[in-house]
Amino acid sequence: MAGDPVRFGIIGCAGIARKLCRAIALAPNATLHALGSRSVAEAQSFAAVNGLPGSVRLYGSYGAVLDDPLVDAVYLPLPTSLRAAWAVAAARKGKHVLLEKPAAADAAELDRILEACGASGVQFMDGTMWLHHPRTAKMMEIVSDRGRFGELKWINSVSTFAPDQEFFEDNIRMKPDLDSLGALGDLGWYCIGAFLWAAGYELPSAVSALPDVTRNSAGAILSCSAVLYWGSAHETAATFHCSFLAHVSMDLAVVASNGSLHLKDFTIPIEEGSASFEFTPSAKFVDLHIGWSVKPEKVLVPTELPQEALMVREFASLVQGIRDSGCSPESKWPEISRKTQLVLDAVKKSIDGGCILVHL
Amino acid sequence: MAGDPVRFGIIGCAGIARKLCRAIALAPNATLHALGSRSVAEAQSFAAVNGLPGSVRLYGSYGAVLDDPLVDAVYLPLPTSLRAAWAVAAARKGKHVLLEKPAAADAAELDRILEACGASGVQFMDGTMWLHHPRTAKMMEIVSDRGRFGELKWINSVSTFAPDQEFFEDNIRMKPDLDSLGALGDLGWYCIGAFLWAAGYELPSAVSALPDVTRNSAGAILSCSAVLYWGSAHETAATFHCSFLAHVSMDLAVVASNGSLHLKDFTIPIEEGSASFEFTPSAKFVDLHIGWSVKPEKVLVPTELPQEALMVREFASLVQGIRDSGCSPESKWPEISRKTQLVLDAVKKSIDGGCILVHL
Repeated sequence: MAGDPVRFGIIGCAGIARKLCRAIALAPNATLHALGSRSVAEAQSFAAVNGLPGSVRLYGSYGAVLDDPLVDAVYLPLPTSLRAAWAVAAARKGKHVLLEKPAAADAAELDRILEACGASGVQFMDGTMWLHHPRTAKMMEIVSDRGRFGELKWINSVSTFAPDQEFFEDNIRMKPDLDSLGALGDLGWYCIGAFLWAAGYELPSAVSALPDVTRNSAGAILSCSAVLYWGSAHETAATFHCSFLAHVSMDLAVVASNGSLHLKDFTIPIEEGSASFEFTPSAKFVDLHIGWSVKPEKVLVPTELPQEALMVREFASLVQGIRDSGCSPESKWPEISRKTQLVLDAVKKSIDGGCILVHL
Repeated sequence: MAGDPVRFGIIGCAGIARKLCRAIALAPNATLHALGSRSVAEAQSFAAVNGLPGSVRLYGSYGAVLDDPLVDAVYLPLPTSLRAAWAVAAARKGKHVLLEKPAAADAAELDRILEACGASGVQFMDGTMWLHHPRTAKMMEIVSDRGRFGELKWINSVSTFAPDQEFFEDNIRMKPDLDSLGALGDLGWYCIGAFLWAAGYELPSAVSALPDVTRNSAGAILSCSAVLYWGSAHETAATFHCSFLAHVSMDLAVVASNGSLHLKDFTIPIEEGSASFEFTPSAKFVDLHIGWSVKPEKVLVPTELPQEALMVREFASLVQGIRDSGCSPESKWPEISRKTQLVLDAVKKSIDGGCILVHL
């Protein structure tokens, strides 16, 4: 019925699926309809541990979720190596696709997903949650006002955390055959996305990895860094570091010609109810250079829902428009994913080539 | 007489000299005795504008300051190209040398200065003020506690400000014949110094400039960036950006395996009376990754004197020890300057070589 909540099916019981179950429950226009795992027992266990309502249909295969005619949309938190096949299958079954990041192993694979979504007229969105926090919109008001903020000059981002020993032994990101991107895909995705966001989604002209890449014995990327350049003379640069070997840090610093913006928790806010950033507009040194004329302003942005619930709400709203009102899918989200993936590909190519400069 | 304040002579009337006049007045163990400029009229004008006491001897040449037997120590804010000659001359006259940064055009030149100071037994210190702020000591307690803070993984620093048009037309940093280092010497000096400080003054194994260097028509460096690496596999990296083309930013972020430290005003605190930094120890994500287990702690450090007055007090205290008690010069300060200059040389070599990797 028009206006009914979007019925989600979740394919795979990854840890992140727990967060999305909660997000779907919190979003006013979404409901969890089905969960598919490799066995019914696994799906039942996940449902019990996470207190899912009895109404959720539990399936012992991924395909069964796609075959359920009541499922409007799927959320896919499968390992990166499995995402493309299931995302394409979902699209072909007419299911809208909310895909965990990194969206694919590379842009060619993502293109196959996007083509399938386009052919079926379903909405695509990747699971980058921070883009949906109202803090992000508030920051964009500042960053996009180039008349006031000035030209971008230097951006820096850090996305790191130090998981427990179990992660290093068992997590799919430690196994290049299941996830060829490791920390670059899991964490570098955020940094690259933040740079593109700040640059108004203008692709960089070139990127270069830095030689500080660290791998485990299987070859998975545990940490790496890169620089992105914009402009004919590389006059704007952005550096990032992503790592499973460092203390949790989610820094974003944007320095422009007439202002700067800083935050330390851009991907996962320190607290759920509100998040902050610091904005320094038009500061100069006071006479004798013994202080600043303007203090950084701490901007606190409350949010009515956690960012992942806002993501689900936004995605579900687009799905409702398509399902109930004949709207077309919103092209912004696949475009953002594709640009992020293109830059990520270039960084990977630079790493694999020994830190060569890769032009886009 | 033993315990008498150290009598300073200032050689040159650069803008920064105004700040040092005030610092000398504020330091309890220092007094301004003489000021030398290229003409007596210029010295008189500077004295009048800055309200210097009538007791300050005003000289129409730099050499006259060195010939004044009552001058214990000189502060040299001359253009970089003139520093070495006058620092060596001052040392040979037995004057202790407080030298504005960058200490020299390159390490070879600095070595000549340090040799002259060593031969005369005078104290050498460069004018890096932030090292003397009590905030810096407080941060070092954290950073140096590797058992708690963990290993350094990634450091980022930004040192930028956007001067007025007059600066771009007239400032010595715009004239490569007077200052061959431009923004790298004036601002990159701080970033490099901060990295060495964080790394316990262990020299990096290699450095590389980034291709985003911008020069004016005369060839002066207006902005540049570089990466420093430590460890056999370059496993710790530090990036910096220094520029005259961006909004004032003085970021330092140190990410270690078990904590992080952030500040936005490391070289010139936003306010004089106190300065802060943020320290995040052992943070993890809470369950479901919907927040952090530990909030960054804002550490506020008051200071009894501005950092430049603390620098003068420290320098004067060392001079008093040498002058009054037969102490030897403190070797820590020239060693810090020399390491900073060595890394700066390597960055300059990388820039001049088209961003080659330069090993130290």
